[in-house]
Amino acid sequence: MASERIWTAGLLIIGNEILSGRIQDRNVAPIATWLNLQGIRLTEVRVVPDVEARIVEAVRALAADNDYLFTTGGIGPTHDDITVDAVAAALGVGVEVHPRARAMLEAHYASRGGLTEARLRMARVPAGAELIENSLSGAPGIRCGNIFMLAGVPHIAAQMLEALGGALEGGRPLMSLTIGCWVPESEVADLLAATERAHPGCQIGSYPFFREGKVGANFVIRSAEEAALEACGADLVLRLEEAGRAAVPGGI
Amino acid sequence: MASERIWTAGLLIIGNEILSGRIQDRNVAPIATWLNLQGIRLTEVRVVPDVEARIVEAVRALAADNDYLFTTGGIGPTHDDITVDAVAAALGVGVEVHPRARAMLEAHYASRGGLTEARLRMARVPAGAELIENSLSGAPGIRCGNIFMLAGVPHIAAQMLEALGGALEGGRPLMSLTIGCWVPESEVADLLAATERAHPGCQIGSYPFFREGKVGANFVIRSAEEAALEACGADLVLRLEEAGRAAVPGGI
Repeated sequence: MASERIWTAGLLIIGNEILSGRIQDRNVAPIATWLNLQGIRLTEVRVVPDVEARIVEAVRALAADNDYLFTTGGIGPTHDDITVDAVAAALGVGVEVHPRARAMLEAHYASRGGLTEARLRMARVPAGAELIENSLSGAPGIRCGNIFMLAGVPHIAAQMLEALGGALEGGRPLMSLTIGCWVPESEVADLLAATERAHPGCQIGSYPFFREGKVGANFVIRSAEEAALEACGADLVLRLEEAGRAAVPGGI
Repeated sequence: MASERIWTAGLLIIGNEILSGRIQDRNVAPIATWLNLQGIRLTEVRVVPDVEARIVEAVRALAADNDYLFTTGGIGPTHDDITVDAVAAALGVGVEVHPRARAMLEAHYASRGGLTEARLRMARVPAGAELIENSLSGAPGIRCGNIFMLAGVPHIAAQMLEALGGALEGGRPLMSLTIGCWVPESEVADLLAATERAHPGCQIGSYPFFREGKVGANFVIRSAEEAALEACGADLVLRLEEAGRAAVPGGI
């Protein structure tokens, strides 16, 4: 088989609140899962503070290394919302008010005191950018080439992703298959490595746990090819059974 | 006042399982909180896959930019546990078996089938490294200069941190004070920016929410100086009240 193009994405989480430990991030896992459904692999996540120079540096690095870059946070109306300015600076373009974003905000705030200068901040985009629709708040997400700026609030970010579903070119999603086993992972480490070596194109991750007073592990096999995945899974079950261990398809 | 030294840390999360969305990270927030208690500020988090070159690159970048570097994940016995090799490669040192780690593992596995080659992997450390005690599993964490390698399993990582409490030099912890308000943040954006400008050394973050059918926001003020923090908080409460908005000390 010819080698296929693999599409990748980086994710930049912008927010002092994550770095201070005040709140726990809840965007990485859903964005990672959504990307995989689009056939795009998340290759790196960075969390940086609300400091323009730090955002600019991370945007440049992650955009250079990946097909797509997603950001969360910093697109609201307050002084600590500086994502648009930082992305524009990273790209070397200006910032402009997007006419349709302005119209959306005007409609949204018509019955809420009108469009103040602070609220108008949410219509600012890097020059040439498009909007990502969002019915939950008046403020849209922003797409600037292959950079996608989402809200920091998880349910709003999720809605922006929904609006993007099917719009991004990707490859084949990485599929996975999980096999659980009540065994200390150290006891089957050689077996796992040998199984992985025997199945090119498959990766096996080992995730140990301690539950119900016993140790066990889930072995997650990943591959972009279903046949290879199934063959690797069947082989792992067999090898575990030969070692006297019962495998639990689907995981424990 | 003379400017004080600020101590910083980077955090590197090693694990395909976070990037695939399979599991949600639960290490960042507790490590961030613990670091702040030591007077160390977390300035960046990166999540990278179980690929040696990617880990090496991130270790070098984060170690160069910070006083301390913490890693989580990849220190177990299986083939996908490559953190020790990657850190050694980043530092340009060899890998050796630590005699005390070997002894600890021998004791731990004496009644569990003995010390196999896979299990012995958990005694491997970058040359010259020390151990971080851990009574929960037989495998210790590893300290190599200012790089601290912790387990990926959150409760084991937490115990390794506990063992390090008070051992790392830091500065003054960043303190915070939260004030809540049932107001759309866009309505008080100018007020927040003006308050921050009036209190050098203080930063104000605005975290909007939608709850009980109403919009509101928590304003988190951060400073290393208690007096400045208190003054900024009192000023913000006053300004909100002058704008006809009731402030809720402690947040909503």
